[in-house]
Amino acid sequence: MFRAKPLALTLGDPAGIGPEITHKAWQSLRNENVCFFVIGDPKLYPDVSLINAPDQVATYFSNTLPVLPIDCPHITPGKPKTSSADAIIKSIEIAVKLAQDGHVSGIVTNPIAKEVLYRAGFSHPGHTEFLAQLTQAPLPVMMLCAQDLRVALVTIHMALQDVAETITESLIIRTAKILHNALQQDFGIKNPRIAMAGLNPHAGENGALGHAEVEILNPAATKLRSDGVNISDARPADTLFHAEARLGYDAVLAMYHDQGLIPVKTIDFHGGVNTTLGLPIIRTSPDHGTAFDLAASSSTRNSGARPDSLIAAIKAAHAMGDCRTNAKIAS
Amino acid sequence: MFRAKPLALTLGDPAGIGPEITHKAWQSLRNENVCFFVIGDPKLYPDVSLINAPDQVATYFSNTLPVLPIDCPHITPGKPKTSSADAIIKSIEIAVKLAQDGHVSGIVTNPIAKEVLYRAGFSHPGHTEFLAQLTQAPLPVMMLCAQDLRVALVTIHMALQDVAETITESLIIRTAKILHNALQQDFGIKNPRIAMAGLNPHAGENGALGHAEVEILNPAATKLRSDGVNISDARPADTLFHAEARLGYDAVLAMYHDQGLIPVKTIDFHGGVNTTLGLPIIRTSPDHGTAFDLAASSSTRNSGARPDSLIAAIKAAHAMGDCRTNAKIAS
Repeated sequence: MFRAKPLALTLGDPAGIGPEITHKAWQSLRNENVCFFVIGDPKLYPDVSLINAPDQVATYFSNTLPVLPIDCPHITPGKPKTSSADAIIKSIEIAVKLAQDGHVSGIVTNPIAKEVLYRAGFSHPGHTEFLAQLTQAPLPVMMLCAQDLRVALVTIHMALQDVAETITESLIIRTAKILHNALQQDFGIKNPRIAMAGLNPHAGENGALGHAEVEILNPAATKLRSDGVNISDARPADTLFHAEARLGYDAVLAMYHDQGLIPVKTIDFHGGVNTTLGLPIIRTSPDHGTAFDLAASSSTRNSGARPDSLIAAIKAAHAMGDCRTNAKIAS
Repeated sequence: MFRAKPLALTLGDPAGIGPEITHKAWQSLRNENVCFFVIGDPKLYPDVSLINAPDQVATYFSNTLPVLPIDCPHITPGKPKTSSADAIIKSIEIAVKLAQDGHVSGIVTNPIAKEVLYRAGFSHPGHTEFLAQLTQAPLPVMMLCAQDLRVALVTIHMALQDVAETITESLIIRTAKILHNALQQDFGIKNPRIAMAGLNPHAGENGALGHAEVEILNPAATKLRSDGVNISDARPADTLFHAEARLGYDAVLAMYHDQGLIPVKTIDFHGGVNTTLGLPIIRTSPDHGTAFDLAASSSTRNSGARPDSLIAAIKAAHAMGDCRTNAKIAS
């Protein structure tokens, strides 16, 4: 079988469900037209082949899970340890370097637990910001996908009361342009249609329920349209996500975390994918956490954790890689 | 066929789709075990019987739409007029009086347009607040239902940036108690389970993303539980609304408009029902507006407007009436 360049999966927190779902994803995808390896501790997975470079992946992938080995202390499932932090971070750094150097088509990150890394001195708010620093990307944009819905966020992890003052015309314009370019480059959509969600209920009802739409969101949309970005004025968020509405756009630009994540996770709780746009490399991840509680339920890493979201993340990264390659060939 | 006490439907704005969906709802329900009449202008509906009291409804309902007539100026569909305001308001006032006096089992309100009423001197933020004043209810609570999901709101029509400072422990406690009582009295749920949504993303992540959960929401939940209300601590809103999660509660207490309405309208855009809890009378309404644009598309009131939401609102009010009657009989 023809194998494109592989994807690199990161270790994630080894005390979480990452190792279990990584192996399950490999079982599910070993005969599909994708291939990947994990940068981790071979002891965490059954049926492995050790590799020392991504170009060896295609040889093994149908038969065993290829692992690029790194040192990792012994871990009991469900019991996270600060001493894992070095391995967790190193796995991410290696994956990013391999992507930057063109040895892998993209990276798929397994879930990490921020508290574990914080205790080890990690200072980034999360995965996304760490990847942005490693790749010197000025504005990483979080996009969630589920089924036919794509939602990119203008603000992400902050208290609700800080959202309104954080949203500026400039931030909307920069975020929307990154989304527009990604939809073209990574999703193969020639003329992407972006629906912008209002910040306030009923998109502010002409100022009766807030002025952000009139003063910030709609002026940003006007400027974006004059720059060739096909984005709507602010639309009421509550009527923006049902099946018929979704036919009218390729992605939504949402103003804050729950506005975007509620519809994504309501529509498809198990199969959602988190994608970071605005990086020079392709990066996706499952949209769930480490699930330490679930991982703790089986000492043999057979907790029943569902690999759906990781599988969707792998397929999404693979498809994005294809699009980017085709775009390069065409240009 | 046995007919329980009828429901009163209000006129709504006669330039909107109200008259069309009222007649369609009657066509759909004329042979079901519900009955209703509309307080409006007989000229707006084909196939009517004029009545002058609710107890005449049962006689006519299978054959014609019963109308309790009120004066209303001539209206062209899609062209709202300030001169309709008196009839719109009078229809609501009559419906409320009939419900208060026990002549109808509840009221179902057709959509109104606030701007039309404001121009005529109406001073309430909307239907809900007007009904609260008419019935002297101290705290009307908006609840939306779609399929198996019920969501009540702590705050409703306000700018997003005002939400955080409006939410107090007292407001949560009062709202949750109204919800709890309504679930028992009007929905026949003996021991209602209420899931409380967090205000902030990830329900504040123990204070890392906002303090409202730690300082306000969870203390309110503790007090409510000690008063016999089965309510959860604040839960992340994004993972609260998918099909599996919905099995774990009877209703969600949401903190703000879009947090509650996004999942309701994403799950069921056409069949959602708006219910006002905390009134002495039963009141439901469709969860859409007047749709003047759609109404304007047909001078014969045959615009293709879907009556699904109004039908669902009628059925919901009927079922609530049954529950309340049974509760009274049992007590």
